Amino acid sequence: MTLEATIAVARGEKPADLLLRNAQLVNVLSGEIHPADIAVYNGTVVGFGEYQAGQVVDLEGRFVCPGFMDAHVHLESSMVQPAEFARAVVPLGTTAVICDPHEIANVLGLEGVQYILDASEGLPLHVYVMVPSCVPATHMETAGAELTAADIAKLMGRDRVLGLAEMMNFPGVLYRVPAVLEKLRAAGNRPIDGHAPGLTGLDLNAYVAAGIQSDHECTTLEEAREKLRRGMHILIREGTTARNLHALLPLVTPANARLCHFCTDDRHPDTLLDKDQGHINDIVRKAIAWGLDPVTAIQMASINTAEYLRLRGIGAVAPGYRADLLVLDDLKTVQVAQVYAAGRLVAEQGRFLASRSDLLPVPIQPSVHLDLSAIDFTIAAGEGPARVIGVIPEQVVTRELRVEPTTRDDRVVADPERDLLKIAVVERHHRTGNVGLGLVAGVGLKRGAIASSVAHDSHNLVVIGASDDEMRAAVAAILEMGGGQVVVAGGEVQAACPLPIAGLMSDQPLETVAAQVEALTKAARALGCTLPDPLMTMSFLALAVIPSLKLTDRGLVDVGRFDFVPLFGE
Amino acid sequence: MTLEATIAVARGEKPADLLLRNAQLVNVLSGEIHPADIAVYNGTVVGFGEYQAGQVVDLEGRFVCPGFMDAHVHLESSMVQPAEFARAVVPLGTTAVICDPHEIANVLGLEGVQYILDASEGLPLHVYVMVPSCVPATHMETAGAELTAADIAKLMGRDRVLGLAEMMNFPGVLYRVPAVLEKLRAAGNRPIDGHAPGLTGLDLNAYVAAGIQSDHECTTLEEAREKLRRGMHILIREGTTARNLHALLPLVTPANARLCHFCTDDRHPDTLLDKDQGHINDIVRKAIAWGLDPVTAIQMASINTAEYLRLRGIGAVAPGYRADLLVLDDLKTVQVAQVYAAGRLVAEQGRFLASRSDLLPVPIQPSVHLDLSAIDFTIAAGEGPARVIGVIPEQVVTRELRVEPTTRDDRVVADPERDLLKIAVVERHHRTGNVGLGLVAGVGLKRGAIASSVAHDSHNLVVIGASDDEMRAAVAAILEMGGGQVVVAGGEVQAACPLPIAGLMSDQPLETVAAQVEALTKAARALGCTLPDPLMTMSFLALAVIPSLKLTDRGLVDVGRFDFVPLFGE
Repeated sequence: MTLEATIAVARGEKPADLLLRNAQLVNVLSGEIHPADIAVYNGTVVGFGEYQAGQVVDLEGRFVCPGFMDAHVHLESSMVQPAEFARAVVPLGTTAVICDPHEIANVLGLEGVQYILDASEGLPLHVYVMVPSCVPATHMETAGAELTAADIAKLMGRDRVLGLAEMMNFPGVLYRVPAVLEKLRAAGNRPIDGHAPGLTGLDLNAYVAAGIQSDHECTTLEEAREKLRRGMHILIREGTTARNLHALLPLVTPANARLCHFCTDDRHPDTLLDKDQGHINDIVRKAIAWGLDPVTAIQMASINTAEYLRLRGIGAVAPGYRADLLVLDDLKTVQVAQVYAAGRLVAEQGRFLASRSDLLPVPIQPSVHLDLSAIDFTIAAGEGPARVIGVIPEQVVTRELRVEPTTRDDRVVADPERDLLKIAVVERHHRTGNVGLGLVAGVGLKRGAIASSVAHDSHNLVVIGASDDEMRAAVAAILEMGGGQVVVAGGEVQAACPLPIAGLMSDQPLETVAAQVEALTKAARALGCTLPDPLMTMSFLALAVIPSLKLTDRGLVDVGRFDFVPLFGE
Repeated sequence: MTLEATIAVARGEKPADLLLRNAQLVNVLSGEIHPADIAVYNGTVVGFGEYQAGQVVDLEGRFVCPGFMDAHVHLESSMVQPAEFARAVVPLGTTAVICDPHEIANVLGLEGVQYILDASEGLPLHVYVMVPSCVPATHMETAGAELTAADIAKLMGRDRVLGLAEMMNFPGVLYRVPAVLEKLRAAGNRPIDGHAPGLTGLDLNAYVAAGIQSDHECTTLEEAREKLRRGMHILIREGTTARNLHALLPLVTPANARLCHFCTDDRHPDTLLDKDQGHINDIVRKAIAWGLDPVTAIQMASINTAEYLRLRGIGAVAPGYRADLLVLDDLKTVQVAQVYAAGRLVAEQGRFLASRSDLLPVPIQPSVHLDLSAIDFTIAAGEGPARVIGVIPEQVVTRELRVEPTTRDDRVVADPERDLLKIAVVERHHRTGNVGLGLVAGVGLKRGAIASSVAHDSHNLVVIGASDDEMRAAVAAILEMGGGQVVVAGGEVQAACPLPIAGLMSDQPLETVAAQVEALTKAARALGCTLPDPLMTMSFLALAVIPSLKLTDRGLVDVGRFDFVPLFGE
């Protein structure tokens, strides 16, 4: 009877639930701002005009626009569970996110994806999922799970599952690796997100012709223009680290804006909590400040993404659309006064109003499996200089250095005086006992160790230390927490952020996590660490798809060669 | 292996089929015009750039754009079969049409829809179908068939079937008639076209909230703006009779153009053949001449329609899109030099190049079923003035006149001297023997009769004559032809256009049909008819959804009352 009731209310035969009077509507469909009285019934906008309603709110000329959408985000980067993420971003105006649960899938496979779906069920934030396409990211590491084309096919068609997430393995597409093409086929006729930094020319043509429809890795205007001309949706990313908005904004014209979107990809707790930053509101505000027409900016944050991902009835304020809408005081600060999700007031003046029942935790299995006694950080001395990972502050890329290591008793040892530390990646999913070992320069620790179960993309344990004992103590601390990040000195935990959910996410409030992360940074600094964000930087040292020298649980990887290399020799 | 081969060709590992060099590409995705060399393989665009190809065409800077799409058309109005329609419009640049086979469905039901699908299979013109939603149009007439919600559901999901066609029964939606809402539900999540002339305010809200997504009946800017603000796709119609482009063009802005489209609804043979008119090319040219940006105009004629109807991989020239593309000499005359359909050259300089095998006729059952001997045109004389249908030249609406008829032997007779003719609507689908009888003024025939099996929307036989005998002769002639249009005098056929396909379409070439229609008009004029297009005007006299006084096989209808009325009395 919903259709009947909707029609009756829309005709004014029965009262609506809510009437927002005297709004200035940012109409992303007609591309204009016009006065409107907006009637809502049963979670849906039913009409503009004179209506009776159970609740009447006089907006006194304030702006109403559709709720913001994040076109591509890894929720795991917030380090909190989906309900906590919602609590943070809904008051900022985000009412829907398209998430790629790539991190948790690397730990827990299908169950990880299912966790994200379950843990976001019924939230005032609508969480949609693109199925991770590249789990594991490479064959040179041990991930917690593998998602095959058959697994992907299984997820397609489920409620809130929209398509295939970023196909990072563009060489696999270009070289027609059967398992990779099977994954594209598994998406059926659904959207397929891309990830192809710097891909150009005929290779780009081939990647697009294979059916891949978006990219969020553009860093230059020229790159974005080439991709846009080929019909790719350009997801302009403004994350905590990767920030492309300023460079790409000149791309957007009224004639092509429908293919342009905003996404965060990764925003960490401090960015989400920062009053001068936040989430999509931050991107919309900046885009307007940098000259983009406000209607276009809001289109990019709403209807464009809904249409690309074929989310019918979402992303606009019009009859038949889900009443996800924002009340804004102005279009300059983009300050969000009220947030309605499916017609319900869920945030006001920055306060989240959802009930506790919206935020119940979802159980999840433990994810750190290793035998501490079997771990050995010993590195045998070799001939000549060793390959050393040269860390670059606030970058995910590294340099390959060649340095004669310090040895003792035919063993390579950490030498903090020379800023040469040991690094290990300890397999934590299947008790394989794999430990990848290497040396790292540029971290600056004088003593102690830092360790993390967040280590892209397989999320094994990564640990850097001034001695084998400190490294062992750090791994032991993470094992005890069931995952997390830790700074250890003298065998004692100096600071910790437990991440019991897949070793990636906390069960604590975002503010707690942000404070814990800050404490970790301070503790590492107290031990001499010179990196602005040591745990984050460390978490990318295992990511063997980004240059140059990286370490997995199976050994050192020269990303340029895309193969293992020894610590010593050629 | 198609995906593998596509990637290999797109990468330049193997030669493409076709390379269009030195094009100026009207890129409807990036919203700009830029130089491009366009490679095509296996019917699909695979890339821009340097390619080897089996065939290389140097365009010397001419424009390339996607093939034009007609967002809403009744193919039956062309009076020819789909292959003939294709032969007419493909050289004009139309490569896809969204058709609503409403007319043939009123005659043949599901089989009529199937005929359109079968008869358009494999054409260089891609024919998509929206399933007719209102067959029959009213309960006050006898149509050849009824399409129920179950029938509609049966068609949904078939190849080339996209959604539900124009929901003309807006009162049925507003008053929640169960059978009407069932039809909306039968569309599932697919697009639903609307048809709601003049609908406004809360009723419009309700119509849109019910899920109806487009309208092609707007005649004023104000009406179109109200509908657009509510999220309706505005299909700007420029047909043979109904012409709304000039009035609606100011609606279109770069920020809302994605919801704006072009359609013809109904174009008759002479319009399609007219060198100064044609099909969608005519609308694009006019829109540009009247000030619309050419890229926007071409977007409205291509990608916008494809996206609205969720036709993935159609409507643009980019990797992965079907190579339906046009070579244009300029963006002013919009003269189409070449047409490629799925990568194949199908028209050049106005010549249609498809082979005969593309144009094979599809068999269809006879559709005129009546017992001539049982038909009686006698009208008994009554008291006082009679209701007379007052014809208005070139309009589909009529006036209701009150006139004392001429009688003889207690029978009402036609009186050409007073311009009072008899009109009959003879049921021709089920041999019910129904004959609706009335009087008509404004036609001007001095002798003879005109008759047609095209009579909206049930397409019974409509006949107007100066005597019962001439009317009978006209009906007999149509019966003999198996459907069509005829002018009779002295019992002899003066001119005829046989329409053996459902009584609506000819099996002859478009040029032949246009000549026959012209001959019909001339013959009617020779008999004193004063109407510019008598057969067309007559074909709307049975359409009981358009004011004021109409005639069906079941009697006179006062459209305002939406009920039958007697010839005499109140």
